[in-house]
Amino acid sequence: MPGEGTVRLTFLGGINEVGKNILALESDNDLIVVDFGLGFPDETQHGVDVVLPDVAWLAERRAKVRGIYITHGHEDHIGALPWLWADVRAPIHAPPLAAGLIAGKMREAGLGREVDIREFDPDSRPVLAAGDMTVEPFRVTHSIPDAVGFGITTPGGLIVHTGDFKFDPTPVDGKPTDIAAIEALSKRGVRLLISDCVHIETYGATPSERVVGATYEDVFAAASGRIIIATFASLIARIQQVIDVAHRHGRRVAPLGRSLVTNVQIAQDLGYLHDPGGVLVDERDAHRLPDNRIVYVVTGSQGEPMSVLSRIANRTHHEIEVHNRDTVVISATPIPGNETSVYRIIDQLFHQGAEVIYSSRARVHVSGHAGRDELRRMLDLVKPQHVAPTHGEYRHLSLYADLAREAGYRDDQIHLVVAGEVMEIGADGVRIVDRIETGRVFVEGRVLNAVDEATLVERDRMANEGIIVVAVAIDRGMDEVAGDPVIAPMGLVIELDDTVRSEMTIALRESLNRILARGPAEDAVLAQRVRSIAASYMFRGHRRRPAIRPVIVDVSSSHG
Amino acid sequence: MPGEGTVRLTFLGGINEVGKNILALESDNDLIVVDFGLGFPDETQHGVDVVLPDVAWLAERRAKVRGIYITHGHEDHIGALPWLWADVRAPIHAPPLAAGLIAGKMREAGLGREVDIREFDPDSRPVLAAGDMTVEPFRVTHSIPDAVGFGITTPGGLIVHTGDFKFDPTPVDGKPTDIAAIEALSKRGVRLLISDCVHIETYGATPSERVVGATYEDVFAAASGRIIIATFASLIARIQQVIDVAHRHGRRVAPLGRSLVTNVQIAQDLGYLHDPGGVLVDERDAHRLPDNRIVYVVTGSQGEPMSVLSRIANRTHHEIEVHNRDTVVISATPIPGNETSVYRIIDQLFHQGAEVIYSSRARVHVSGHAGRDELRRMLDLVKPQHVAPTHGEYRHLSLYADLAREAGYRDDQIHLVVAGEVMEIGADGVRIVDRIETGRVFVEGRVLNAVDEATLVERDRMANEGIIVVAVAIDRGMDEVAGDPVIAPMGLVIELDDTVRSEMTIALRESLNRILARGPAEDAVLAQRVRSIAASYMFRGHRRRPAIRPVIVDVSSSHG
Repeated sequence: MPGEGTVRLTFLGGINEVGKNILALESDNDLIVVDFGLGFPDETQHGVDVVLPDVAWLAERRAKVRGIYITHGHEDHIGALPWLWADVRAPIHAPPLAAGLIAGKMREAGLGREVDIREFDPDSRPVLAAGDMTVEPFRVTHSIPDAVGFGITTPGGLIVHTGDFKFDPTPVDGKPTDIAAIEALSKRGVRLLISDCVHIETYGATPSERVVGATYEDVFAAASGRIIIATFASLIARIQQVIDVAHRHGRRVAPLGRSLVTNVQIAQDLGYLHDPGGVLVDERDAHRLPDNRIVYVVTGSQGEPMSVLSRIANRTHHEIEVHNRDTVVISATPIPGNETSVYRIIDQLFHQGAEVIYSSRARVHVSGHAGRDELRRMLDLVKPQHVAPTHGEYRHLSLYADLAREAGYRDDQIHLVVAGEVMEIGADGVRIVDRIETGRVFVEGRVLNAVDEATLVERDRMANEGIIVVAVAIDRGMDEVAGDPVIAPMGLVIELDDTVRSEMTIALRESLNRILARGPAEDAVLAQRVRSIAASYMFRGHRRRPAIRPVIVDVSSSHG
Repeated sequence: MPGEGTVRLTFLGGINEVGKNILALESDNDLIVVDFGLGFPDETQHGVDVVLPDVAWLAERRAKVRGIYITHGHEDHIGALPWLWADVRAPIHAPPLAAGLIAGKMREAGLGREVDIREFDPDSRPVLAAGDMTVEPFRVTHSIPDAVGFGITTPGGLIVHTGDFKFDPTPVDGKPTDIAAIEALSKRGVRLLISDCVHIETYGATPSERVVGATYEDVFAAASGRIIIATFASLIARIQQVIDVAHRHGRRVAPLGRSLVTNVQIAQDLGYLHDPGGVLVDERDAHRLPDNRIVYVVTGSQGEPMSVLSRIANRTHHEIEVHNRDTVVISATPIPGNETSVYRIIDQLFHQGAEVIYSSRARVHVSGHAGRDELRRMLDLVKPQHVAPTHGEYRHLSLYADLAREAGYRDDQIHLVVAGEVMEIGADGVRIVDRIETGRVFVEGRVLNAVDEATLVERDRMANEGIIVVAVAIDRGMDEVAGDPVIAPMGLVIELDDTVRSEMTIALRESLNRILARGPAEDAVLAQRVRSIAASYMFRGHRRRPAIRPVIVDVSSSHG
């Protein structure tokens, strides 16, 4: 019964970072998971495409896991499912659009038959049983339709999880945040609020998605050539606004780019995207229309290298070449880390003569996350005993703590935790009782778990300092160095000095021969010696610390 | 005489980019250079510290160069002097603060005795003779004291160059933009305006530097522990405000970090920084003061890895460890590309308990560049026949062209050029008559010109794809491969498959032996064969295209 026992809550990701949201709630007998998302690499994780949470801890408890509960269909909330669901194999509960998106991903991953996806309708105020817990979704507004928060009744009390939200008073789909449901939960007494906080740096409230539609009206009225709009493939409300505005201006709309085409199809099939005027058209037909009759909605609003917008900007798109009557709208703001690629694309498009409209120039994007005043409003609505912000870097969590203090919360009611910390929640309050191992799994291409932290450090060092490859042939028959060691720099900033090179060669040969004279030596021993000699010559001779790669070639077989 | 001949104007940098500002104006007999700046690497230029303009074209014309005219003392306007001035060796004309900064840099570079630096006082409205041209500096406000623009009388007419500017109505040093001087130039008839444009995305006007002082008052009033303020070392007006506010609040001020200590010293010596209350204190004495009596002004506002702020945030600073009553102010906005490092530092500082104030939270930074309305105001003041925006990426130049069109300029009066294009300017107008070679010189550490574009591509590829080193020992006596080729992956995302590895080894040996059977072969020929075999096995076996580094070890000598 609520309040009589405890529940243990652990973020496996999504806290102290933006991305890979995943949260476990564990009672004595049962375990539920909220969201199952992926993240993206930082600038030092060269070559990594996607970062996943480590779910080994969940996999060990697989028998206890009653379900995975999804708040909405964004990648940072569902994207790890195709990669890691098979380690857990619990039923997935999701609102209809997210369920549709997940089903598509699981089919692509070859898991379509095995996975058990259960849709819920947030408007019916369902109560989903999950062992000794129950999950009650309530509708919130966000930058994708069908986003929800959860009221979760646990042995440790009622927990409200906002999901990603804002209070959009005029959402494009006409379905605002369900304030009555939140108030009803509040009346039951909420032990803990888990709140989105990523946009707390924005004072006031985030504007309604509708303001973007108003900007589109101006842009369409002024445009004489083609209109190309780059936005997120999941931002169905924005695509709806493009369709609506295009219809009024006599233009057809063609989605370009795999994720956009897929999402438009799914959203239409499930009734989340309406095209009463029949303006949607496919790519081939679109290219035949006159310039002033077409809008392309394209991928690449974050400067992704293989996206449609990047290819247009690089002039490598097979069909679209921008000219000086075209208008390009970047309907997004760059996520930190993407600025340089996004601005490079904007510069290229201007250079080709396009009129480029982006967030510094006009209101072509609004966030899906609550501003500071909305976060306070949610806190005031829920009136929890305790608060724990999530979905933010540490600065966002800290600023949320300030907000909670302003609202009268004491420090022992405000919980800033890190991934892996186990919070025990009950009538006696909230405390950290344990810390579990969490981690990251790096994906490159289709390869899971292929690159480890050490390889990433090696790559970063190679990139910043270059490498010295030192190849030494060892005559195993004679137990001596054969020929001269070869010193081959790669990506190195300096020309290797001839004296340094010849002294290093002599030192390598003499030192390895000394080791070999004592009897057969393993490659690893020789390699270690090569590494230390080369490092010391590089530093003494050039003040450089490149990565060093010894290669030992065994040549005894050829003349044994 | 103005209007009777022509002058040729070429940007060697600073256009279509932000950084390495350098402009050449060439008449038949004479050549002058405006600014001589450096730039910073982009995210693909691994390991590069600084990017310089290529001044080979200037060096060839050294005999014609009458002088280098400096608008102000920022690195992107003076930073190439210590590296490349010796290629040109013309006198350097600069306002006093810039002259002081340049003199320090030249001394450090060992060029102190050779260089001829001539100060001018902008308030005396000097007319500096430069062959058949004259240069008239006029004062502008910017984020460093003593910034100027130039009126340049040339055989092709009067050219006004704004330098970097804004119209700060209440500058901290009490010296506003010299509007009367600009009007006087305007009355003489201006052929061409060369205008700063980098902040054109800001609507309205950039606020006065004074607003930062007002924020500091609030921050100081609220702070109970130490105050640490990170800002640009050249932002003397801001350091002045820290000194003034600290004095009112009974705190002492210690600059930390080499560039800050140096600049504070130079600015004090030259009378640009005033400390009537005697609040400046050196580092050692500062550490002995109680927390609520000290302000540290530190380097690292852009997240630079070796800066004082980074070291405090990483807990590697030898003296300062942040605790939970300290206030840290990041008095800057991150330059695109620096966001992730800056936010990482902010997160770390919050985590250590500091109150962190940064640009998303409070007005702790204003730009030194004119907003859109100020750019229009300058255009209206100067009333040139032609305009050419500079100091911006292509999007900024394009938006400036829009602004000029709004002001009534025709397209043939608006000149968006790229580096290297030679604009001929005269009574008949402005046209591109030539294009010269321009380029970039990369600096790493103290090494000039050490890394070329090809090496940077190699580094980026190593970082993103990894490397395969293939070492092959060749017995030159027998003309055959000795032992087995060794395949050594580095930073590779996948484990090399055993079958791929052994097939590749066999193919390498057989193919090289076939070449050697035909007679002695050069290393380069063997290396090329290794490269193509390894690449094809890596792609067929693993769908990967790593960089490949063949190393040929000659072992004939050991048993010849």
